[in-house]
Amino acid sequence: MKLEQSQKLLFIGDSVTDCDRVKPEGEGLFGALGKGYVANIDALLQAVYPELGIRVVNKGISGNTVRDLKNRWQEDVFEQKPDWLSIMIGINDVWRQYDTPFIKEWHVYIQEYEETLWQLVAETKPLVKGLVLMTPFYLESNEQDKMRKTMNQYGRVVRKISEEANCQFVDTQAAFNEVLKDLYPATLAWDRVHPSAAGHMVLTRAFLKEIGFIWNR
Amino acid sequence: MKLEQSQKLLFIGDSVTDCDRVKPEGEGLFGALGKGYVANIDALLQAVYPELGIRVVNKGISGNTVRDLKNRWQEDVFEQKPDWLSIMIGINDVWRQYDTPFIKEWHVYIQEYEETLWQLVAETKPLVKGLVLMTPFYLESNEQDKMRKTMNQYGRVVRKISEEANCQFVDTQAAFNEVLKDLYPATLAWDRVHPSAAGHMVLTRAFLKEIGFIWNR
Amino acid sequence: MKLEQSQKLLFIGDSVTDCDRVKPEGEGLFGALGKGYVANIDALLQAVYPELGIRVVNKGISGNTVRDLKNRWQEDVFEQKPDWLSIMIGINDVWRQYDTPFIKEWHVYIQEYEETLWQLVAETKPLVKGLVLMTPFYLESNEQDKMRKTMNQYGRVVRKISEEANCQFVDTQAAFNEVLKDLYPATLAWDRVHPSAAGHMVLTRAFLKEIGFIWNR
Amino acid sequence: MKLEQSQKLLFIGDSVTDCDRVKPEGEGLFGALGKGYVANIDALLQAVYPELGIRVVNKGISGNTVRDLKNRWQEDVFEQKPDWLSIMIGINDVWRQYDTPFIKEWHVYIQEYEETLWQLVAETKPLVKGLVLMTPFYLESNEQDKMRKTMNQYGRVVRKISEEANCQFVDTQAAFNEVLKDLYPATLAWDRVHPSAAGHMVLTRAFLKEIGFIWNR
Amino acid sequence: MKLEQSQKLLFIGDSVTDCDRVKPEGEGLFGALGKGYVANIDALLQAVYPELGIRVVNKGISGNTVRDLKNRWQEDVFEQKPDWLSIMIGINDVWRQYDTPFIKEWHVYIQEYEETLWQLVAETKPLVKGLVLMTPFYLESNEQDKMRKTMNQYGRVVRKISEEANCQFVDTQAAFNEVLKDLYPATLAWDRVHPSAAGHMVLTRAFLKEIGFIWNR
Amino acid sequence: MKLEQSQKLLFIGDSVTDCDRVKPEGEGLFGALGKGYVANIDALLQAVYPELGIRVVNKGISGNTVRDLKNRWQEDVFEQKPDWLSIMIGINDVWRQYDTPFIKEWHVYIQEYEETLWQLVAETKPLVKGLVLMTPFYLESNEQDKMRKTMNQYGRVVRKISEEANCQFVDTQAAFNEVLKDLYPATLAWDRVHPSAAGHMVLTRAFLKEIGFIWNR
Amino acid sequence: MKLEQSQKLLFIGDSVTDCDRVKPEGEGLFGALGKGYVANIDALLQAVYPELGIRVVNKGISGNTVRDLKNRWQEDVFEQKPDWLSIMIGINDVWRQYDTPFIKEWHVYIQEYEETLWQLVAETKPLVKGLVLMTPFYLESNEQDKMRKTMNQYGRVVRKISEEANCQFVDTQAAFNEVLKDLYPATLAWDRVHPSAAGHMVLTRAFLKEIGFIWNR
Amino acid sequence: MKLEQSQKLLFIGDSVTDCDRVKPEGEGLFGALGKGYVANIDALLQAVYPELGIRVVNKGISGNTVRDLKNRWQEDVFEQKPDWLSIMIGINDVWRQYDTPFIKEWHVYIQEYEETLWQLVAETKPLVKGLVLMTPFYLESNEQDKMRKTMNQYGRVVRKISEEANCQFVDTQAAFNEVLKDLYPATLAWDRVHPSAAGHMVLTRAFLKEIGFIWNR
Repeated sequence: MKLEQSQKLLFIGDSVTDCDRVKPEGEGLFGALGKGYVANIDALLQAVYPELGIRVVNKGISGNTVRDLKNRWQEDVFEQKPDWLSIMIGINDVWRQYDTPFIKEWHVYIQEYEETLWQLVAETKPLVKGLVLMTPFYLESNEQDKMRKTMNQYGRVVRKISEEANCQFVDTQAAFNEVLKDLYPATLAWDRVHPSAAGHMVLTRAFLKEIGFIWNR
Repeated sequence: MKLEQSQKLLFIGDSVTDCDRVKPEGEGLFGALGKGYVANIDALLQAVYPELGIRVVNKGISGNTVRDLKNRWQEDVFEQKPDWLSIMIGINDVWRQYDTPFIKEWHVYIQEYEETLWQLVAETKPLVKGLVLMTPFYLESNEQDKMRKTMNQYGRVVRKISEEANCQFVDTQAAFNEVLKDLYPATLAWDRVHPSAAGHMVLTRAFLKEIGFIWNR
Repeated sequence: MKLEQSQKLLFIGDSVTDCDRVKPEGEGLFGALGKGYVANIDALLQAVYPELGIRVVNKGISGNTVRDLKNRWQEDVFEQKPDWLSIMIGINDVWRQYDTPFIKEWHVYIQEYEETLWQLVAETKPLVKGLVLMTPFYLESNEQDKMRKTMNQYGRVVRKISEEANCQFVDTQAAFNEVLKDLYPATLAWDRVHPSAAGHMVLTRAFLKEIGFIWNR
Repeated sequence: MKLEQSQKLLFIGDSVTDCDRVKPEGEGLFGALGKGYVANIDALLQAVYPELGIRVVNKGISGNTVRDLKNRWQEDVFEQKPDWLSIMIGINDVWRQYDTPFIKEWHVYIQEYEETLWQLVAETKPLVKGLVLMTPFYLESNEQDKMRKTMNQYGRVVRKISEEANCQFVDTQAAFNEVLKDLYPATLAWDRVHPSAAGHMVLTRAFLKEIGFIWNR
Repeated sequence: MKLEQSQKLLFIGDSVTDCDRVKPEGEGLFGALGKGYVANIDALLQAVYPELGIRVVNKGISGNTVRDLKNRWQEDVFEQKPDWLSIMIGINDVWRQYDTPFIKEWHVYIQEYEETLWQLVAETKPLVKGLVLMTPFYLESNEQDKMRKTMNQYGRVVRKISEEANCQFVDTQAAFNEVLKDLYPATLAWDRVHPSAAGHMVLTRAFLKEIGFIWNR
Repeated sequence: MKLEQSQKLLFIGDSVTDCDRVKPEGEGLFGALGKGYVANIDALLQAVYPELGIRVVNKGISGNTVRDLKNRWQEDVFEQKPDWLSIMIGINDVWRQYDTPFIKEWHVYIQEYEETLWQLVAETKPLVKGLVLMTPFYLESNEQDKMRKTMNQYGRVVRKISEEANCQFVDTQAAFNEVLKDLYPATLAWDRVHPSAAGHMVLTRAFLKEIGFIWNR
Repeated sequence: MKLEQSQKLLFIGDSVTDCDRVKPEGEGLFGALGKGYVANIDALLQAVYPELGIRVVNKGISGNTVRDLKNRWQEDVFEQKPDWLSIMIGINDVWRQYDTPFIKEWHVYIQEYEETLWQLVAETKPLVKGLVLMTPFYLESNEQDKMRKTMNQYGRVVRKISEEANCQFVDTQAAFNEVLKDLYPATLAWDRVHPSAAGHMVLTRAFLKEIGFIWNR
Repeated sequence: MKLEQSQKLLFIGDSVTDCDRVKPEGEGLFGALGKGYVANIDALLQAVYPELGIRVVNKGISGNTVRDLKNRWQEDVFEQKPDWLSIMIGINDVWRQYDTPFIKEWHVYIQEYEETLWQLVAETKPLVKGLVLMTPFYLESNEQDKMRKTMNQYGRVVRKISEEANCQFVDTQAAFNEVLKDLYPATLAWDRVHPSAAGHMVLTRAFLKEIGFIWNR
């Protein structure tokens, strides 16, 4: 287990991370962490490693792109002083290109995406004990689907930055692909983006595996 | 124009037809016909053929399959005594096989679908002046997608019944396919099923074309 | 078709234009364009000319007079940089003279109406590729009705400005008059102002005809 | 003053009478009589003739036609045992012919209107000390307006029955016509049917005048 | 009738005047004047003197004392430029002394009441064509009741100022006393302060009598 | 202390007893006993005599008269099998005579009141270990007030029945009179009926005194 | 893994099982299984064993005791025909003895608990492929706490029945005790009964361990 | 009785004091003091000592620690100029250490607690006629419980400050302990912190005893 005693683990991202978390704090009692993978991870850390006292904070905001993250990075990351940081961003950067194709200023194309994410990682890596990069994903089995192909490109950017900056890396698309062999995408998400409880468990397992969590201690 | 003076045109179907229509009447003032293709058709008939005095009734109910239609056919079709009837059903019959695969009794497989639809058409055709069969559809461009393939099979059943029973036929999937050449499915429906206003206009045009409506009279 | 690839078409006006559009953006997913003629026009442009990628923005605000438009013109028109602009204003300018006759400062009389509208058109015409002026209207068949007569005067102002400034012109009152031959005004609007879905289709058709839209491409 | 000590005065009618009265009682504390002419009449009777102890009951129901009154006459009139009864009905009987012209079964044509009203009056007159018939009305100044003409015909039916059955008669249309000389209809009612507070005062005065009420006792 | 063509008549006061009027305007369509005596007066002026075009504005605010009126006099009276002004204030000035006796700073004793009201009247009288002073009141029949006695003292202050400043004067307590001969206070107001519809008609009649309104013109 | 180990103490009455208790049970967690004197008594019994384990049930219903109690006596008293019963009824029996004087069937005059209450007491006394009769009250200091005089008569009926049937007796009016020497009625109840928290403490103390409760055990 | 292809796994219990599940179905899309351990188990089964197609149904109802389960057993268990059944009941049976000690009929004492649970198990065991008994629990670390001691007794009844009837057995109290070594009870549940997300993960892990679930397949 | 004529008694604290009081005033009509011990004390002072005219103000705010009190002391204590002040604080200072152990900055440890409370008392004592210090409490019978032990330590700090500063002292924990001999904690508070109505009566009695209140004057 890579997390250590009393560390603060902060998640930042879009609606998949947000999941109705309490705002602005992003932590506390009564479901403050929302209903998604962040809440699952916190719950499993408390249930299986209660002695570690890991503090989890959720700073996801629905609809965010990497451009939005940059704008709130000072307040929501630097000032929070996390020991570990996890970033999952990019779904809206891609999605807006496909669901509102005529509103160009809502699109974050791949060059801006890469440069911005790179900058955020570069500035933050020296300040944290661990940095986890999670790819964006799209719950579409057809690899030839246009939006799936774009999402894969953004995912490869994440992998590349992760390798260059020596981060922990979680390939969420790969994790989902395993399940999509048996289940049609609509079972996991009507809109192919917002996961069901099962989908959030896929993300939960993929993250925990990367940080060395052991289910049967 | 196939519709004649003072005729009653009744639509029955699922959520795509329903679209928040007022219940139980399905007609009246103040948006009683809902916000979908039925309301569009009524609006265009009044706007372009006001002298015909066509009476439109919406009997769509969200979530319905052909099995549900059968159960309420006596009340919602026979007792309404429509001059024209339009049926669009089958999306949920197929969808439940893909979004809740483990709950088998919610699935309506193709044999039951065909037999039930055939029975309803056979019993009703002699009582009406016109009967329009609209195929179910799926806003997925990939023809190899499993659910799209199933939906196509159900659509072929509708075409076959339409031909055998000598009904008006509207191939909604074909109409959408035209638009999907230029627009990604998410532009027309996040969940690939419930159409945006643009999607309802596609259905509106396809229906009106079949009944001989002329835009520039 | 006068609209060209990727152009932005902005509508400004009062409650007939507004129709519950999302504020302040006036565009986006999930019915952001409201439920009136603007949404219809957008839907038909996407359904029939999907390859053009026309971007529609709705900046109508309920209760507005031309005096209100002037106050928000900088933000809601100039800063939006539309390629095409459509203006329909004047109903409240007239209506307040008849429904709240004792509150004089709510009335916009014809001289102020003409000067203000003229100024807005003059300043904007050079900046756009197309400018459509739609008359205000009143769903009253009796040409001798006092308010109908006043509305006709305002409509003639719109026509005059349109001709002098060389704009596209839509005579909405004339379009409604066609339908009012067959339907009593209360069928289209209980208050003779806010149109039913059918009434919005009358506006939709009148606008689309002016810009060269073809229903059966 | 024709009302006497401790008499019960019951009003029956449609939405103009109803005006948010409490249901089903139609009397009691805290605005139970609604916000329209019935409440005004009760308030003026208490304020000016407090010693009479007149009991006012409101049995108006929105949307009612004379056909609806007939269906609830036993419960809402006979079982209430009023000393005085006031009936104002007919607006919806006429309005539905003009706002939903295609839904014929919602229309109550003049023959049914006359026969039904006549029957109700004939059966009730012997049981009460006073019976007031109020005409339906339409806040439209143009006498040639189609709906106004129809409403006038229904009003003449009320006058005729009133004379033949020897009832008190209130010509509400005539009372409104006085005001409409100075005010445009929209000042009194956006939809020309549901009166403003001023419109309800017109009804109040017309009724009270007929029963001999004196403002300055 | 003392009011003349197109004059603006403004009412200011506490909850008895307020009665759910729309804020901040205090005038307009759709019951903007509230549900109390102000709305009644406006309705009767429109119904009986429609040709005068009197404009009524309601600036009552619940809970106000004369101290509160002073604080908003500039905005709510002077800037409104009324032709006629009506003031009814003092109920809360007295009531707080009896319902929250321990919170002294909520009480407005008679000296402050008189000085403040006098100042407001003195500054405003020269600017208006008519100024009506209405006494506060208490719906308690027992003249020996402590709060009733205090209210009478405040009422005498209003009478005195009215005489000295040569204003129109309405003795609301006297008007209610007439009715209280026949009705127990609880019939007109459960809390002896907020009048029922009948109580508001008592106020309405008392005011209209003072300004020369004639019911049967 | 007259209450003994594990006894059930049931209160029945009108809105003063009800005070938003949970329905239909009238007992349980989370404020199920409402916010009035019943909740206070229960709270003090638990706080001061926790070892007794007294079970308190609240069966008050707003608006009830003794006539209503009779109708629900079987279910709400007999079937509950209380050890002790407390009855406080009569306020609405009297109040309706004064706040809705024209609706005679809502009044319960003193003969019916006495006969009904006597019957309920006579049938129930043999079945319980203790029966407490609380008088109705009216928070009006003026003994000559008409409604206060009537309430006193009803209170004397309660005293008489209490003596004849050998019940515990609580003179609530007398208890309030003590406080009214120092506080004006509006401090304890705006409508002179529904007590403030202080008023409910007066009732609480009067009841507890009668059953031998000792504050400083 | 003891669960096999396409089996139906039904959970029954109280609020810990219920957790806002959809009623009456207890299965379906959009969080129909609630937010507790049942939803977690379903999510993990889909995420890790998607090929098995396990169907999970939640029939928990807040506040239920074993007495309530008996009353709805026919409908909610037998008619559902589950392959596997999991029962967790007893918390309210015990809790009511401690939070509402005076309302004896709400208590289910240990003899009734044992007999009823035994009967349900005995009748159901032959009809299912697997039956899991989960103990009730109490998140109190002090073993001498009275309610904790009682809960332990009920837990021993569950263990005994489980052994005698040869069921799967989950000692939830033991699972929680592990975590309570490090965390104070209030971290897991303010009221020591309704678990936080972390508490539900403890239940989830304990259940899954018993049925042979493997996290890292 | 230590309170004297017309004194102002102000309570400050956390949610136990707050109990839905009206904000920001903390006094007035209609339950402005909330539903807890402050409202009880006010009600008993009015009911038993109405001639004293004690003014009670509630400045409790849910979730507050002594750190929060310090931040609002100027506005909520000094500017209120109370004659008597009662402080009950410390529950959240302790609770956060046990329910959110990982969020350290929410904890107020005992040194900061003592210094802050001491400073507030020292600055305020000279300005008031009486100062009451109430200990925080925890409704847990087990003296060895970790949180109970911590709470006891904080309670001892309050006692010590009270003695050194010569304040009135209320040992709320001791008062509850008396009741906890007979009742299990869950009867008084599900979460062992927020008291039931009975719990608030325990606080009420303990406070009133300290200030010399006599129940049977």
